[in-house]
Amino acid sequence: MKAEIIAVGSELLTPDNVDTNSLLLTHQLNEAGCQVHLKTVVGDDRDDIARVLREALERSELIIFSGGLGPTEDDLTRNAVAAVLHRRLAIDEGLLEIIRQRFIARGFRMAKINEKQAEVIEGAEVLDNPFGTAPAMWIEEKGRCIVLLPGPPRELQTIFEMSVLPRIRLRSGGMRLVYKSFHVTGITESELDSQIAPIYTDYPQVRTTILAGTRHIAIRLYRWATGEEEPPDIIELSDRLQAALGNSLFSTKGEFMEEVIGSQLRQHGRTLAVAESCTAGMLGMHITRVPGSSDYFKGGILCYSNEAKIELCNVPPELIQKHGAVSAEVAEALACGVRNALHSSIGLSITGIAGPGGGTAEKPVGLVYIGISDGKHTESRHRIMPGERESIRERSTYLALSWLRRFLMRDTVSNP
Amino acid sequence: MKAEIIAVGSELLTPDNVDTNSLLLTHQLNEAGCQVHLKTVVGDDRDDIARVLREALERSELIIFSGGLGPTEDDLTRNAVAAVLHRRLAIDEGLLEIIRQRFIARGFRMAKINEKQAEVIEGAEVLDNPFGTAPAMWIEEKGRCIVLLPGPPRELQTIFEMSVLPRIRLRSGGMRLVYKSFHVTGITESELDSQIAPIYTDYPQVRTTILAGTRHIAIRLYRWATGEEEPPDIIELSDRLQAALGNSLFSTKGEFMEEVIGSQLRQHGRTLAVAESCTAGMLGMHITRVPGSSDYFKGGILCYSNEAKIELCNVPPELIQKHGAVSAEVAEALACGVRNALHSSIGLSITGIAGPGGGTAEKPVGLVYIGISDGKHTESRHRIMPGERESIRERSTYLALSWLRRFLMRDTVSNP
Repeated sequence: MKAEIIAVGSELLTPDNVDTNSLLLTHQLNEAGCQVHLKTVVGDDRDDIARVLREALERSELIIFSGGLGPTEDDLTRNAVAAVLHRRLAIDEGLLEIIRQRFIARGFRMAKINEKQAEVIEGAEVLDNPFGTAPAMWIEEKGRCIVLLPGPPRELQTIFEMSVLPRIRLRSGGMRLVYKSFHVTGITESELDSQIAPIYTDYPQVRTTILAGTRHIAIRLYRWATGEEEPPDIIELSDRLQAALGNSLFSTKGEFMEEVIGSQLRQHGRTLAVAESCTAGMLGMHITRVPGSSDYFKGGILCYSNEAKIELCNVPPELIQKHGAVSAEVAEALACGVRNALHSSIGLSITGIAGPGGGTAEKPVGLVYIGISDGKHTESRHRIMPGERESIRERSTYLALSWLRRFLMRDTVSNP
Repeated sequence: MKAEIIAVGSELLTPDNVDTNSLLLTHQLNEAGCQVHLKTVVGDDRDDIARVLREALERSELIIFSGGLGPTEDDLTRNAVAAVLHRRLAIDEGLLEIIRQRFIARGFRMAKINEKQAEVIEGAEVLDNPFGTAPAMWIEEKGRCIVLLPGPPRELQTIFEMSVLPRIRLRSGGMRLVYKSFHVTGITESELDSQIAPIYTDYPQVRTTILAGTRHIAIRLYRWATGEEEPPDIIELSDRLQAALGNSLFSTKGEFMEEVIGSQLRQHGRTLAVAESCTAGMLGMHITRVPGSSDYFKGGILCYSNEAKIELCNVPPELIQKHGAVSAEVAEALACGVRNALHSSIGLSITGIAGPGGGTAEKPVGLVYIGISDGKHTESRHRIMPGERESIRERSTYLALSWLRRFLMRDTVSNP
């Protein structure tokens, strides 16, 4: 089914807001066998909404509106749709009573203005909205389906999943999009592409995309299919990619690196502590995004000053004097020091120059050292990160996590 | 001038990508006196692109395309636009030579495929693209202006500013959008609105919007104006709002809270250290987003385990035993302890239950204590944060920053 999405709201036409509802809708529409071929954002303007709907009716089988169903003067989706379809808009007494009860249940009286929300387009099916008073509608018109959803993401999402998706699945004849995602790290986008292009080009039915982000590279496989079973070609491609990617591949389930590391640490009964200089908390924050991370994360030290490095991480002042705070020696001393200070199995450290100031010819902005120690083995690596201050800090954080994962994978790692 | 933006690219119709080029374009179009009344995202499909252009020509004076100007089969913007306007598409020999030289300058030979990028629509002005080989175009058609811009943000942005904006300004008769932004904290959105609505409704020419985010609430004022001077009504409204908002207002320049705090600390020659339990680095990370924050931020302790609270922040174990790690007593002890451990003027602490596990009837998920100490005064406050784990951690971080700002504003704060 050819679908299009129309987001209504003048706030979506300002420099500050972008329509994100359509991403979730697209994801679920794809899985239900609908391809989104067009998206429009239109302001709270009755003529513009009507015009876009008229055009949509000429090109799409499924038209999904989000927003413009509230109680105020600005909320014009209902009116515009009714006008284009030449249908009446009338108060539905049953719905009015439901809305009134919702207000009472929350301890409010319904204001007169909210009566407007009980207006239903002639012939529309009203879709239940458990989280709000704006009623959603499903309308059929000459073989086209028109869906009106409220803008607040929680309401939109719930109604879409509960009431819209089942109706769409009925109509899409069992086609669905099979989707796989691989997360890869430690390789550049072009290296990756030249490595896997000879493989994925063998499977023309599968669309393969490579998307490089700051955190990792995602390889995505999409394939239209009927029935419940996975098509053999996408299974075969997926197996071949896994074999080719080896250690670069860290998740086939869409996990983030900190989740993978959490499983590794938990599996081996190891604990972790971090010493962060230039990232000053970003590493700890990422590790603890995972619920239950207190099982293996003992804490850390934000050693933003040399004083903190010396006093809290036990780095010898001579080491800083001789090699500088951004050096392999200090990164290793920090990893050992924080491991001891927090009695953890493993210590992980970051020290670098995030800029914009502080760089020299010898040690430029972007130079970052990462240290790891498990008490028996202590090592460090460095890299010069491109980009601005925040980007340097982010890349350093992800690289530290990535190196930690490889460290944990090695046989040489032993329990303390 | 009524403008609309058409983003071309099938990748913008997947669940993973959103068109962000239009945000920058909208911002600059507004300032140049153009209102964006519609945005469309269309795939790499010649018929869809052509259809959208035909509709746009009926409703908009300025039509801006982004994307679809590359050298591959998928890049169809040029062809679709030429077809709709019934104009020829022909290789421009001068442009071809420029593109060829660009490749040579980078040490490459131009591939045959790139010749397509020298194709120019009859009657179009070619706009210089200093950062790429895709040529941008300015086309006039029956009083309408059509602009073709490449998709990569850096190219789009540069061409837009260098070549498109000046042409638009010439046509928009000197109208521009005057814009002000106020950042507010420590007040709910509805409290804020009931406080300032009686003021801003006195100025019907100024559009006032209130946008609540996790970090703060932004009040934005927009007003169309001619000439260089600010209209008196927006100045008056802005003065009245500042007076009414008092201490809730923390920036009239769009600054983030951590920047304001940085200025406060630097101004008074004070230093800061943090002890973070549930946020585990998020506070430190935010404070150090500001370049030069090492002038006043000494570091911190991620006391994710009780052990770390006791050993590194010097919290008496009895205190944890008696009151629990999430308590006013421990928050205050952490603030004092980290202040001493890092020899800073001020210690700031966060301890809370981020969930999803760990909550009890007495101490539910979302309960967060924040402690502050300057050595003479030590205090704490608590709040129950709504939302999920990450949202609780973010809100706790912003609240800690907000309370620190108010603490720093008080006369009672003295240097250590």
